[in-house]
Amino acid sequence: MSLEKLLENEKQITALGQVAGLISWDQEAMMPPKGAGQRAEQAGALAQVIHDRRTDPRIGDWLAEIDGKQMSEFDRCNVHEIRRAYDRATKVPARLASEIAMASSQGQQSWVAARKTKKLADFLPALKRNIELKREEAACISVSNDPQSLYDALLDEFEPGARTSELSALLESMRPRLKALREKIAEKPAPAALKGHFSADQQLVLARKLATILGYDFEAGRIDKVVHPFCSGSGNDVRITTRTDEADPFNCLYSTIHEVGHALYAQGTTDPFMPAAEYSSMGVHESQSRFWENQIARSGEFAKWLFPEMVEAFGAMNIDSPDALYAAVNRVETGYIRTEADEVHYNLHILLRFELERDLICGALEAEDLEEAWNANFERDFGLKVEDPNLGVMQDVHWSAGLFGYFPTYSLGNIYAACLDRAMRKDLPNRDELVANAETALILNWLRDKIHVKGRLYPAPKLIEQAIGEAPSTEPLLDYLETKFGGLYDL
Amino acid sequence: MSLEKLLENEKQITALGQVAGLISWDQEAMMPPKGAGQRAEQAGALAQVIHDRRTDPRIGDWLAEIDGKQMSEFDRCNVHEIRRAYDRATKVPARLASEIAMASSQGQQSWVAARKTKKLADFLPALKRNIELKREEAACISVSNDPQSLYDALLDEFEPGARTSELSALLESMRPRLKALREKIAEKPAPAALKGHFSADQQLVLARKLATILGYDFEAGRIDKVVHPFCSGSGNDVRITTRTDEADPFNCLYSTIHEVGHALYAQGTTDPFMPAAEYSSMGVHESQSRFWENQIARSGEFAKWLFPEMVEAFGAMNIDSPDALYAAVNRVETGYIRTEADEVHYNLHILLRFELERDLICGALEAEDLEEAWNANFERDFGLKVEDPNLGVMQDVHWSAGLFGYFPTYSLGNIYAACLDRAMRKDLPNRDELVANAETALILNWLRDKIHVKGRLYPAPKLIEQAIGEAPSTEPLLDYLETKFGGLYDL
Repeated sequence: MSLEKLLENEKQITALGQVAGLISWDQEAMMPPKGAGQRAEQAGALAQVIHDRRTDPRIGDWLAEIDGKQMSEFDRCNVHEIRRAYDRATKVPARLASEIAMASSQGQQSWVAARKTKKLADFLPALKRNIELKREEAACISVSNDPQSLYDALLDEFEPGARTSELSALLESMRPRLKALREKIAEKPAPAALKGHFSADQQLVLARKLATILGYDFEAGRIDKVVHPFCSGSGNDVRITTRTDEADPFNCLYSTIHEVGHALYAQGTTDPFMPAAEYSSMGVHESQSRFWENQIARSGEFAKWLFPEMVEAFGAMNIDSPDALYAAVNRVETGYIRTEADEVHYNLHILLRFELERDLICGALEAEDLEEAWNANFERDFGLKVEDPNLGVMQDVHWSAGLFGYFPTYSLGNIYAACLDRAMRKDLPNRDELVANAETALILNWLRDKIHVKGRLYPAPKLIEQAIGEAPSTEPLLDYLETKFGGLYDL
Repeated sequence: MSLEKLLENEKQITALGQVAGLISWDQEAMMPPKGAGQRAEQAGALAQVIHDRRTDPRIGDWLAEIDGKQMSEFDRCNVHEIRRAYDRATKVPARLASEIAMASSQGQQSWVAARKTKKLADFLPALKRNIELKREEAACISVSNDPQSLYDALLDEFEPGARTSELSALLESMRPRLKALREKIAEKPAPAALKGHFSADQQLVLARKLATILGYDFEAGRIDKVVHPFCSGSGNDVRITTRTDEADPFNCLYSTIHEVGHALYAQGTTDPFMPAAEYSSMGVHESQSRFWENQIARSGEFAKWLFPEMVEAFGAMNIDSPDALYAAVNRVETGYIRTEADEVHYNLHILLRFELERDLICGALEAEDLEEAWNANFERDFGLKVEDPNLGVMQDVHWSAGLFGYFPTYSLGNIYAACLDRAMRKDLPNRDELVANAETALILNWLRDKIHVKGRLYPAPKLIEQAIGEAPSTEPLLDYLETKFGGLYDL
């Protein structure tokens, strides 16, 4: 009875969380501009309700009553996740949770304002406040006095069970080979870029076709245009947003494919209300989006299918063959901006952010020294001086919103995607042929079986290990990058 | 302090209610089809939260603490409305509220199924259950043992303070003149109807233009296409839905104008979170939609503006002048269906339903005898035999959803709209000229001043009386109909 009550209660909290997600989607995709003030009140009232439900002392009672009882693996995982969420929510005082929410909102406003003056100094007080509050939150949750355990506590929200020390070793081990690769490529001539004018409507038609081809279920989702693309929802209502740039159709097409990757995972859940059936971690979520975006859609095989589709949508282009398209969607350019980075540079961007935010949270770096550290590390890794903080330390929204511990999940996603790709190729020897014909049903089925239906039953590294038959490592990603770009750039 | 807590709590409940409205809008306008099951869970969880908040015993404590205290007229009204909602919510046992919600949902399913077999017998058990539960609810709320007080209790939800006996006298007094008018018109030849094919896209373009012209603020709202048009939200986020029929553009245009009338009222609130600033009653809400739809947009003056707009949107039409357009949008036809009825027949439809549902709730009519009573009364008032219950007793969704006490608000809306129109003409002598040029800002301002900004400060009859300088009556409506249709049909 206590288990039933606990799960029924969890189902309701999850349903309310889905409502919160929906009104957030609406805010980006549908809400009229003047509605913002009222929406803030609505979102605040709902967040309060969810927090109250999440810290309801009856949850503690039910958990105590079922402690040690026999139950299925699925329910054991549900109970574990409910306890984890209850512990996190009850360990953080309501006063602190509310201060964090307010500081995050104010931090974003301050960040927007500082980006106008292009001075970190204008954002520094808000940033320091965010760091201070997140450190305080981490101290409430953390179980040890080791400084790294503070960052562990924040990581845990996005990547359950991840440890700072292990993650540092894993990610930092990639730097030498990534730097060597980008330096070799920098000496080579760049392939032609796509140029021209590409109708926004045609981009959306092709984006929807791509989503359908890759297995996205439009009966359980929809695609709309917004400023910043994202994917939200789960189960039978998973919505994608995209954007269009008439000078660059790849922006729309590849951001759609990326979000479709997330959406296929979310549509593949076995139960949208139970935590055991939720996504395993943010890193695993990102592995799904990256896999479809990079391993599938930025492959030479996929270019064979995409090229005639683009000609049909947009007419003749300066890119005049599948091979030229393959080269164009994989152009490597050393740039300042993470969100515009190619596959070679992307993880170097993440490494930079990961090390800095880890040190900020663990107390090894002061916010006052952040900009200097960013600029020095950036020049070391990318060979470029940062002159404008909007192209440097102030480019991402994350820290302004109090999101610390999130950045490394992007690289984990890339690492896992390459691991999955290598294993899948063994199970599906004709994978390249399937991709060249955009017949990806077997590929999706493989991911459904190995990842999607497993939900949160296993920690991410264990889930990937079961899927690929060995412990996940950075080798498949580094090999993939060296082989792919070695071929493209004739290294 | 207690007043502040009470109002802050009310604001949060209202904000949650707005979220419930938003996810309901989403369900009709945006939700992918497979999302229905999950949405039911989300809506159920949110309804439970709102019910719990609405019956929170702290509300009773706060109300007791401020009883008799001095406060502004606005806050006195807030407190009155909070008490009214608290009393209604706490008088109805949670068990009964949940049974009503379930029976209403099952009733609608049963109604849909029975409409397929065209047999009331298939819907009768669900209908009886709805009546029984609503009678039980009414008995919980009702303060007297008079059978009519049961219907009073249900009326009160939509039309605060309305009394069955007064409403019966008011509405029934219209029957003789309405019947006489429709019989005289029936002897006359009908004017030409609009025929042709009208692009759905052009209809929407014109509908949006109409909405803008009438003062609808698109920065605080949006228009989308759905199956059944409605208006939802308040304050700075008021959304309209409409539909298109390529054989009949009036459907889209006039349903849009109707919903714009509701939307202007909702956008005109002085505070979207306080009950004292809410709409006065459903009858007053309907008066706003009817006023814009009928008194403004079905007038000869408005046809002068609309005719060239339609020619621009659709090209030449078989209706070839503003006068012909005026006649076409006011064609009188005796039909079975309320939602398709012209202004002459509409209130006869409502009278029929009002008397029957009143008698069902008061115990003067058994559900088993409903169809026979409907058919007899319909033939008496409309001169037509009902052969198909889908064109008779089963045409409306209301009773299947447990909505008893709602129908009369439609006629109150028509009565109030005509009252407002007569008074406004005295204040704005050039009203006809303004309408002919679609310059309706002064008309909207008049309604804003007299109705919108008054919120719920006064009961509907008092609000109308203050606006028009005399007690509301049926005379303005009946005079308006006889004059308008006397002219159109040369009576």
